[in-house]
Amino acid sequence: MGTPFVFLFPLIMDFWSKHYIPTLKESPAEAEIESHKLLLRAGLVRKIGSGIYAFLPLGAKALENVADICREEMAKAGALELLMPAVVPAEYWQAGPRWNAAREIMYQVNSAGENAELPDEPQFVLGPTHEEIVTPLIGSEASSYRDMGKTFFQVQTKFRNEIRPRYGLMRAREFVMKDGYSFDATDEDATATYQRMAKAYEAFFSRCGLKFISVEADTGVMGGAFSHEFMVPAEVGDDDVVYCLESGYAANVEKATSALVPDDLADAKPVGELERFATPGVATIAALGEAPYGIGAEEQFKTLLYMGDERLFAIVLRGCDDLEEAKLGALGYQVTRPATPEEIAPVMGAKPGSLGVVKGTIADPTKLDGVFADHATRLVGNGVTGANEDGFHLRNVNLSRDLAVTRFGDFRKVQAGEPCPRSSKPLEIQRAIEVGHIFKLGVKYSENEEYGAKFVDADGNRQPAVMGCYGIGISRTLQSIIEQGHDGNGIVWPWAVAPYQLIITVLDPGMEEADGLARKLAELAEKEGVSVLVDDRAERPGVKFKDADLIGIPLRLTIGGRGLKNGEIEMKWRAESEMSKVPVAEAEAALLQAIRSQAG
Amino acid sequence: MGTPFVFLFPLIMDFWSKHYIPTLKESPAEAEIESHKLLLRAGLVRKIGSGIYAFLPLGAKALENVADICREEMAKAGALELLMPAVVPAEYWQAGPRWNAAREIMYQVNSAGENAELPDEPQFVLGPTHEEIVTPLIGSEASSYRDMGKTFFQVQTKFRNEIRPRYGLMRAREFVMKDGYSFDATDEDATATYQRMAKAYEAFFSRCGLKFISVEADTGVMGGAFSHEFMVPAEVGDDDVVYCLESGYAANVEKATSALVPDDLADAKPVGELERFATPGVATIAALGEAPYGIGAEEQFKTLLYMGDERLFAIVLRGCDDLEEAKLGALGYQVTRPATPEEIAPVMGAKPGSLGVVKGTIADPTKLDGVFADHATRLVGNGVTGANEDGFHLRNVNLSRDLAVTRFGDFRKVQAGEPCPRSSKPLEIQRAIEVGHIFKLGVKYSENEEYGAKFVDADGNRQPAVMGCYGIGISRTLQSIIEQGHDGNGIVWPWAVAPYQLIITVLDPGMEEADGLARKLAELAEKEGVSVLVDDRAERPGVKFKDADLIGIPLRLTIGGRGLKNGEIEMKWRAESEMSKVPVAEAEAALLQAIRSQAG
Repeated sequence: MGTPFVFLFPLIMDFWSKHYIPTLKESPAEAEIESHKLLLRAGLVRKIGSGIYAFLPLGAKALENVADICREEMAKAGALELLMPAVVPAEYWQAGPRWNAAREIMYQVNSAGENAELPDEPQFVLGPTHEEIVTPLIGSEASSYRDMGKTFFQVQTKFRNEIRPRYGLMRAREFVMKDGYSFDATDEDATATYQRMAKAYEAFFSRCGLKFISVEADTGVMGGAFSHEFMVPAEVGDDDVVYCLESGYAANVEKATSALVPDDLADAKPVGELERFATPGVATIAALGEAPYGIGAEEQFKTLLYMGDERLFAIVLRGCDDLEEAKLGALGYQVTRPATPEEIAPVMGAKPGSLGVVKGTIADPTKLDGVFADHATRLVGNGVTGANEDGFHLRNVNLSRDLAVTRFGDFRKVQAGEPCPRSSKPLEIQRAIEVGHIFKLGVKYSENEEYGAKFVDADGNRQPAVMGCYGIGISRTLQSIIEQGHDGNGIVWPWAVAPYQLIITVLDPGMEEADGLARKLAELAEKEGVSVLVDDRAERPGVKFKDADLIGIPLRLTIGGRGLKNGEIEMKWRAESEMSKVPVAEAEAALLQAIRSQAG
Repeated sequence: MGTPFVFLFPLIMDFWSKHYIPTLKESPAEAEIESHKLLLRAGLVRKIGSGIYAFLPLGAKALENVADICREEMAKAGALELLMPAVVPAEYWQAGPRWNAAREIMYQVNSAGENAELPDEPQFVLGPTHEEIVTPLIGSEASSYRDMGKTFFQVQTKFRNEIRPRYGLMRAREFVMKDGYSFDATDEDATATYQRMAKAYEAFFSRCGLKFISVEADTGVMGGAFSHEFMVPAEVGDDDVVYCLESGYAANVEKATSALVPDDLADAKPVGELERFATPGVATIAALGEAPYGIGAEEQFKTLLYMGDERLFAIVLRGCDDLEEAKLGALGYQVTRPATPEEIAPVMGAKPGSLGVVKGTIADPTKLDGVFADHATRLVGNGVTGANEDGFHLRNVNLSRDLAVTRFGDFRKVQAGEPCPRSSKPLEIQRAIEVGHIFKLGVKYSENEEYGAKFVDADGNRQPAVMGCYGIGISRTLQSIIEQGHDGNGIVWPWAVAPYQLIITVLDPGMEEADGLARKLAELAEKEGVSVLVDDRAERPGVKFKDADLIGIPLRLTIGGRGLKNGEIEMKWRAESEMSKVPVAEAEAALLQAIRSQAG
């Protein structure tokens, strides 16, 4: 038995017996979600360390297919492929605007010599994105307006110091990204480039067979004018997408707004004098809602203290609202984090639980860098807040009269059911996986003199290039395709991404008629550009069918002695449950028709 | 002027005006060798840091072409592509046989958080090669003899803590490698796999248009049974290849031997009593050769002290010979280095310059781990050596009678003109660049129980897989192609590697007839699978010709108004000096013929 085809077929065809496809019957304990289980069970990847994976041959093939589709769409959009280094001298990042914000997610790289002394600052970092490199690389040489209007991209292994890697390739420490960067002469050109890239992204995700939504997104530490994320709806996602089917509005919850607070809402008039009252042991919004107080969360002002670049500031929300931390980015600090009780007490005069920003109650108001109130606090108008004295609160607090607000802004997390900002219909929320993200950066990086990314415009003036950046998680897209495309038996690959598109399952390898027909059909398919795997193993039919389903090859032909006796073979689509019998005489025509049905 | 083609052509064609090809007139000071200068001048790469480069679009294209040729040859040889992580948990290496020897050339990777404490041992390393990963990855699952007979490879960015990066991509800190690994059930199968890979290597380098030689090589820190290097002759190479045209013998000087010492050479008889004599101030072989001593280097025993895994040992050579440090690998130490004078003096009783291993003269012989004498010391027979007392030497030293030799071996560096070990003709030596290296590893890694790379053979016995490993420096191959293929005007790419194979230089862009013909010919070439760059820039013809020569596109068509008036265009091969005129009516036929002449 063994491998009867080796002598019949040219080596270019792939045989299961010569391949390495270690399928697993059981799902390894490390996998929590279906796509992660299937990556392991179908022999696509293996774990090397926490958040670090090796792609086995089938996985590497599928990954390369995704990358190649991406390359094609980038080329169609006029982008040029380049390859920047993964190990980057730290000074490039140190010269840029986000070293402090980003350094915790980057790995530092140093010499590993036994006696090497470790420097205080890293020599190199493994950059998770390359604005800090591409800006001086291109910007320093592209010095005329004629050099503008270029978009570059690379497909590269990237690294992120992920504290809690999860879900296989979804949140890994090492992953494959497509990252792109554009340089334009004018804001208008940059917007046109951004829109062209958005279209290329839509084409890419569509060709990958993904259902996705494009949403407005927060620009985060990347900065810039605006951005969109490409989201694959999935319960295992890390993000919440807020959307309205009526208006087409869609935004990451980090960015989403609602029409909850009417624009024309009048300021609430005071309802009485400020009144201090004892609330022994009460340190939560919920506790104040209970007897004997009975003050609803929507009647409370909630005060949260944060550090922005190591300066204390306060956020005021309705008691019933949650802070959306991403929205703190609008305040302009590079790094924000919750303040500790030890940092809060000397400034406010109390510990969390009794905090408030009523004028005159703050122990040392000069140490407070600002008080930022969410728009929805205007819905409270008059309410209750902490007295900055443990065990005491204040009532009849009037927003305009009493609170030391520096300015209002949008800081709360939108909730399902709130009115859409466009249609006023109730918003819906869906968990999703971010697979792509595009940013209109503007001049954030190019205005940095150290990067030299200025060009001379047609009038002879030095201008910073108007930039955009464009990311796709290639390995994450691969797993998202599995998360969306599987059933109880295994993966169901879309045609364009499948590691092999056609599997020919030979039930009686060694039988001349079966082998010959398999060869003829495999050759025919390969001439049409279809990748073919021939299952020539000496295994029981049940094992072969189970494995073919598990690894998810879109089209299967089954050739066996019993069928050939009746003059027929079987054809089955992985995505369909029925199998069809095809007379041997019509096998070639049927195969061609099947292949061509996928060409679109 | 500008870009008249944009509206005529489909976007898939590449136009210089839309491209990013920053050619340089002057060679940057950082470049020492021609290929490095041309990489920079032709706009293929830019330096990001010492030994760290970015590939610009033309460079990325050529690099990908080399990688793709390599992938094809690997697939033809039956190897399966996978992708292992670049960031590797350090414990994989720590479990293996060469952590101490290799850690100095590896970068260590740690979390870069501002407050992160650096561990004494690195969390991760950036592996320059992946035996430590692939052995457990494949070995732990491939558990039956039926799973053996597989070869895997990856094309991956690799990292090496290169102290003195040089020559651009030749000795870089970040580079692209193809690394492959084979697992076989028997030694015989492993040798057959090794030979198949050697053939694939020859096919690969031939398709890259390189003149190369395959030589016997030292197995170094990699270990294993035997190995071959693939060498590109070049004066800027790091290696010396010893070869004999007569016999076909070729070996890296690190490994090369000669027939200098006859096998049947009789031991020299003593010529007299040992005699101690004063040599004040004499501390070199050369000084002892001068008056008043006049003792030729070939009459002296030279004694060198080394540390092997921190134990002192001595090497004895003829005074006229040089040590080949790579040959110390045969002594079985993991790490060797020259001993310091401070380490030598207490054991030997003297500083370098007066050392010897004559019995009874060594201050503390118990501290000496061994004395290893080169075979050629037998040609000295009786000679002079240091007395282990500063300013004194010994004469009438008889090799057999007086020297405390533990064992003899091959430690000297072969020199040009010595007799070939096969033909006895004079050997020649040539500088060369190592572009590929294959090793028959045997069971060095698979016998390690921690890696679990044992399989059950047909008789039910657990056996370690017999392994091989196979490396190609993809980025180094790219630069070697330029080092071998250039002239005074720029690069001369071989057809298969060229970033574009055909350049159509349009001298009068915007002129309808010229644009139309350029489009027709470009489409014709692309249909034949040829990659085409159209130079549509509004530049003077001289600038366009100079740039085309500099970036080295193999075939150029020139279309201009003046030529078209005479009904002709120009065709020129980059590698040839003559240009030929082609009637417009015959242009398509001539282009097809030119393209097809390159197909082989």
